[in-house]
Amino acid sequence: MTAGIIGATGYAGAELVRLLAAHPEVSGLALASVSFEGEMIENIYPNFFGKISAPLVKPEEVIARSDAVFAALPHGVGEPYAKACVEKGVDFIDLSADYRFDDDEDTFKAWYGKPYIHPELRQRSVYGLPELNREKILSLKKKGPVIIGNPGCYPTGASLGAFPALAKGLAALGSEALGPKAPCTIIVDSASGVTGGGREPQRSFHFPECSDAVAPYKVGSHRHTPEISRNFKAMAALGKAEPPLVIFTPHLAPMNRGILSTIYIPLVQAWQAPASAGAPRPPSKEIEAKASEIRSLYAGFYEDEPFVRVLPAGVNAATNRVRQSNFCDISVHLDPAGTTLIVCTAIDNMVKGAAGQAIQNMNVLMGFDETSGLAAVPALF
Amino acid sequence: MTAGIIGATGYAGAELVRLLAAHPEVSGLALASVSFEGEMIENIYPNFFGKISAPLVKPEEVIARSDAVFAALPHGVGEPYAKACVEKGVDFIDLSADYRFDDDEDTFKAWYGKPYIHPELRQRSVYGLPELNREKILSLKKKGPVIIGNPGCYPTGASLGAFPALAKGLAALGSEALGPKAPCTIIVDSASGVTGGGREPQRSFHFPECSDAVAPYKVGSHRHTPEISRNFKAMAALGKAEPPLVIFTPHLAPMNRGILSTIYIPLVQAWQAPASAGAPRPPSKEIEAKASEIRSLYAGFYEDEPFVRVLPAGVNAATNRVRQSNFCDISVHLDPAGTTLIVCTAIDNMVKGAAGQAIQNMNVLMGFDETSGLAAVPALF
Amino acid sequence: MTAGIIGATGYAGAELVRLLAAHPEVSGLALASVSFEGEMIENIYPNFFGKISAPLVKPEEVIARSDAVFAALPHGVGEPYAKACVEKGVDFIDLSADYRFDDDEDTFKAWYGKPYIHPELRQRSVYGLPELNREKILSLKKKGPVIIGNPGCYPTGASLGAFPALAKGLAALGSEALGPKAPCTIIVDSASGVTGGGREPQRSFHFPECSDAVAPYKVGSHRHTPEISRNFKAMAALGKAEPPLVIFTPHLAPMNRGILSTIYIPLVQAWQAPASAGAPRPPSKEIEAKASEIRSLYAGFYEDEPFVRVLPAGVNAATNRVRQSNFCDISVHLDPAGTTLIVCTAIDNMVKGAAGQAIQNMNVLMGFDETSGLAAVPALF
Amino acid sequence: MTAGIIGATGYAGAELVRLLAAHPEVSGLALASVSFEGEMIENIYPNFFGKISAPLVKPEEVIARSDAVFAALPHGVGEPYAKACVEKGVDFIDLSADYRFDDDEDTFKAWYGKPYIHPELRQRSVYGLPELNREKILSLKKKGPVIIGNPGCYPTGASLGAFPALAKGLAALGSEALGPKAPCTIIVDSASGVTGGGREPQRSFHFPECSDAVAPYKVGSHRHTPEISRNFKAMAALGKAEPPLVIFTPHLAPMNRGILSTIYIPLVQAWQAPASAGAPRPPSKEIEAKASEIRSLYAGFYEDEPFVRVLPAGVNAATNRVRQSNFCDISVHLDPAGTTLIVCTAIDNMVKGAAGQAIQNMNVLMGFDETSGLAAVPALF
Repeated sequence: MTAGIIGATGYAGAELVRLLAAHPEVSGLALASVSFEGEMIENIYPNFFGKISAPLVKPEEVIARSDAVFAALPHGVGEPYAKACVEKGVDFIDLSADYRFDDDEDTFKAWYGKPYIHPELRQRSVYGLPELNREKILSLKKKGPVIIGNPGCYPTGASLGAFPALAKGLAALGSEALGPKAPCTIIVDSASGVTGGGREPQRSFHFPECSDAVAPYKVGSHRHTPEISRNFKAMAALGKAEPPLVIFTPHLAPMNRGILSTIYIPLVQAWQAPASAGAPRPPSKEIEAKASEIRSLYAGFYEDEPFVRVLPAGVNAATNRVRQSNFCDISVHLDPAGTTLIVCTAIDNMVKGAAGQAIQNMNVLMGFDETSGLAAVPALF
Repeated sequence: MTAGIIGATGYAGAELVRLLAAHPEVSGLALASVSFEGEMIENIYPNFFGKISAPLVKPEEVIARSDAVFAALPHGVGEPYAKACVEKGVDFIDLSADYRFDDDEDTFKAWYGKPYIHPELRQRSVYGLPELNREKILSLKKKGPVIIGNPGCYPTGASLGAFPALAKGLAALGSEALGPKAPCTIIVDSASGVTGGGREPQRSFHFPECSDAVAPYKVGSHRHTPEISRNFKAMAALGKAEPPLVIFTPHLAPMNRGILSTIYIPLVQAWQAPASAGAPRPPSKEIEAKASEIRSLYAGFYEDEPFVRVLPAGVNAATNRVRQSNFCDISVHLDPAGTTLIVCTAIDNMVKGAAGQAIQNMNVLMGFDETSGLAAVPALF
Repeated sequence: MTAGIIGATGYAGAELVRLLAAHPEVSGLALASVSFEGEMIENIYPNFFGKISAPLVKPEEVIARSDAVFAALPHGVGEPYAKACVEKGVDFIDLSADYRFDDDEDTFKAWYGKPYIHPELRQRSVYGLPELNREKILSLKKKGPVIIGNPGCYPTGASLGAFPALAKGLAALGSEALGPKAPCTIIVDSASGVTGGGREPQRSFHFPECSDAVAPYKVGSHRHTPEISRNFKAMAALGKAEPPLVIFTPHLAPMNRGILSTIYIPLVQAWQAPASAGAPRPPSKEIEAKASEIRSLYAGFYEDEPFVRVLPAGVNAATNRVRQSNFCDISVHLDPAGTTLIVCTAIDNMVKGAAGQAIQNMNVLMGFDETSGLAAVPALF
Repeated sequence: MTAGIIGATGYAGAELVRLLAAHPEVSGLALASVSFEGEMIENIYPNFFGKISAPLVKPEEVIARSDAVFAALPHGVGEPYAKACVEKGVDFIDLSADYRFDDDEDTFKAWYGKPYIHPELRQRSVYGLPELNREKILSLKKKGPVIIGNPGCYPTGASLGAFPALAKGLAALGSEALGPKAPCTIIVDSASGVTGGGREPQRSFHFPECSDAVAPYKVGSHRHTPEISRNFKAMAALGKAEPPLVIFTPHLAPMNRGILSTIYIPLVQAWQAPASAGAPRPPSKEIEAKASEIRSLYAGFYEDEPFVRVLPAGVNAATNRVRQSNFCDISVHLDPAGTTLIVCTAIDNMVKGAAGQAIQNMNVLMGFDETSGLAAVPALF
């Protein structure tokens, strides 16, 4: 098959190029770039010299030549390409936010400032978190070409970390625990590497401004908040529970790749460990036993997922253990009072958080082995 | 005056040396090191060549020669020196955890595995967070030599961030909001630079293992948890409120210095902003107005504190803005649902989180200007 | 085939594990580790979870089970394993310095402090820089099992950078240019990432000591000096020229992987560009034309080499363009006075500088395609 | 006195602000910025909150209010301000290249592409490397206001490293050693931190493009080449020797501050150590003795210089040992063949390489203690 990439010279696009060039089912690449049309991709990314060589052509040509099309474009500009693909009958995998909100145009508009251009395309689109929506993707595909709304980087790590707790009834959702008005609050505190900011130089990502430093940004106002919230709601619904309130704080950390998310989930009484009164004490055996029980539940939940690794006790999620891979690592912990589940997840924001997950979606759509082209062992350094 | 430092060759000790050498009220340094006794400090730290030169002698000699003594030693070994100082009549500023728990020996024993050697010294000791305990320190000093339990690095940033909310009744403490059994939970999520791990090489801090990576460690089991909890309890008591439950998660980030703490504090009804129902929306004007109100309250609370900077709206706490300084920067935010206060604090873990705060305590004890020797503008890079 | 690795838990060993696990011709791995015998490799390197699982056994067992054996051990301890392999009839690829000096035991002894234990094994050993010694390796292999002395990391980048100039008579070697006593001096100035120092924590590689800093080390006394010198001599001999004097200065840079070497080679008159007199001027057209000519010569020289990329004008060698790959990138420059060739080379010290080159040698010995298992496109970040 | 800074919001300008705000002889600051006129400096650099507050006004107002004026502007735009200062009778310290080439307008034009606007000002200007030109500066000052051409960052480290060897006749300059046509070649190989690239974001300094990587740039064509060359010529002239040919290669390293330069100087016969024939050997006692002798010569040469530290044997120059200080650290080495002197120097490019040296020049001009405002001990991390 020939895979097409529109927006091939941004970071996510270039990572798609690199991964697809080594994909065993992909024999050809068709690449488009607005900024560098007419140039060769290897001159923009000299890493590719001698390995990958392709001209950067017009999006229309990419669509004409491809059996599946990826778009790694800014939000709000890819819809016409999606339309063209659907009309041609090929799948369109969109790495922007344009197709992440399904029918909830109001939320999209509120956070991204634009209405849907082609609302009718929503009938062909699905949110592409395969661990949550694999069946939906497959059943939509049966009826024709599919538009994938590839998840945001933060929502991927956050959602995979909370999914088992939400779907299996561990989270103290609804009013019982917290009184009639207060929904359960789940806090997602994340740190991302700088590639998350994209290829365009700007002051925040200028080396002297962000190296050797950690800082939060867009506190209480990051666009991934409604996406996480929507996912949590869908996951809670699987457990027939009320949606939680989500608080999400992103931070920038001085590393190239990776997102570490620490997720705080209040537990229902039945999953709490017996609390000690008074000043905090180091984790008791009861705490450790309960944490172990929840860890097993998580491991069972993800048993058949090829890209989720629930880590054994004593091993913490760490961004450098998933580097260059499509894994989401999850470590499961309990606070010493036994009331809150603490889940840490690590992904490579460029792979599971963007290009890798997009390819995973293509594999699902095309009926390939889901790990095809994504089998890399995480790089050691 | 002559300042003495026992444990002068560890990172906190060396930072004390560097800062005290430039302190306008300090004319002499007496330095002790178990590992390097008999050597010159500048041969251990060649940064000091041509500026600071002093032999490393025995602790006893340091005590004999000094008008105030700092100890930057592992936990559990400094009590005899504290005793000697008190007997000699000079103040002892201890950077270990030995004197951070006042009368609560049980908690100390539970987390540090050792009993107090000289329990009677607790009558001369006080927890040295000047913003909280300045009056206590001064009143103890009136009666004789003082032992300062210099705060841990994480508890410093966490406590200064939560202090106004706790003392002024913003935090939803007690049972009203959360039902009879569930105390209010305050989450402290922190990232620290690698100097926090000290000078001894170990795998976790080996460059290839921790560079270009973020990872949590000691989730639910870090020793600073009871110290943060105790501080929050004391601060809540000032507002006549119940103590909150504290959840604390430390992370390691690839930077030399700095701690960034993000603190999540549920608000009492009166301080909440009107919540929008349904899917999250970007912060409303009401949210921004309430955040601004709380920011003003914080600014007023810290008005006379020389080392706390409450940042204006739009400026986030960042570790590289307090680098090499004794500042604690605080930015104040509200989640978009208006129910939770999000406070971010940044300190330099080696200065306000260790050596600088110790000198601030010395300044308080000696009656110097509290900023004496600590006036440095944060380094730009 | 089954590949064996003795010393599988050091950095070079673990990188061998990772690369060989994905090698299309390798179906089994046999791993030995002195430090972790009895444990599973994935517990030492959690990056491997779910992808690579193997017990760490005794070296003897590895040798018994393997069709080729790699040793990633400290210098001076692998000779008995080499002997056992030769006796069993399987190739032994040694990543230590033990077999890098062929018959020159005196030089080995002078720099590594030990004599050869089994001097007779030298008849089966060859220095494994395939670009220089491919034919030698193949012809030795025809007569029986081979011991490969896998090159040092610095010598690999230095030698590939100087090879065409030395072999093609560009370098001003011998006495004509410099007077009867002074040999030509070639300067190799290199910067390495910290993985070059290995897995054992030590102060120099402790994050706070080496991050955000560049420093030279072992100036004039690094053990790779005689290896570079020996290689340059062999390369010059191909051009029937006298050996140059080599000056080599390594530096440590705050990055995980990579070696950047800048090599200064005085040119013979015929290859110099016309010098401008007086104060330096920006490169003239003549300078650029001559540089371009030499660049073409380099490109031609390496035309058939799968792992050497001679970069076009305007693209400089950079460690992040070869990251995670077996490439050696070379950029060719001329000083503005036209008398000195400046060659910059970049390799990944863990791949072309260690594990990758070892696998390249295995491929040569086994008759596999030389790029087998080494086809990765350099990682983007 | 009031110090004025034109271009106060660039990196060098902001570092000047920070250092001058703590200068004991400076009571007021007057700041100008083209980009941010009308704003407050602390809003551009929130590091300054609570410590430094000043409006950004017009350059003319700065000149009117100041007793000495610094300009941290791009090359080619500051001459009118220099003229205004000279006319007003106040010193002008220029951090651009405009006044670094004295009467050699041709060289300036060749490398910077512009002629001198006010050539007559050259009578009032002097190159401000105090260690070389202190007397010149003082004697010019006697006759009126002075324009200082503050040295480039690379030339500072390179020149201080070569100065003693050049001035004391160690370097094999001229034709005796190298034949009639070949001048002595001195190679300067340097690595710089990213602040050297200034405050404006650009792709080369975008975190993901330059972190975890080392690469050369402008090989053979960097504008600091003629400045280094000119300085070496002046220093050689003090030893009555011919000027050397200079080859200079800059590299970018992933750190904020610092320049490490490694300088290779061929020695005259009299200063060479007896060479061993054949393959290289570890440094002999003779080599070490000769290195020690040269080290002593260096130490004596710089005995009275407050900002040059010649390091003892066994301590290498390292950028993190001079961080945040005005020191230039020098370590002296010999290649194992005894023919080439290897000098390593470390400076903080923002201090001794820019703002600190500019203040040192102001101190010289104003008759202050030369270390006034520059007494900081290098930061530990």
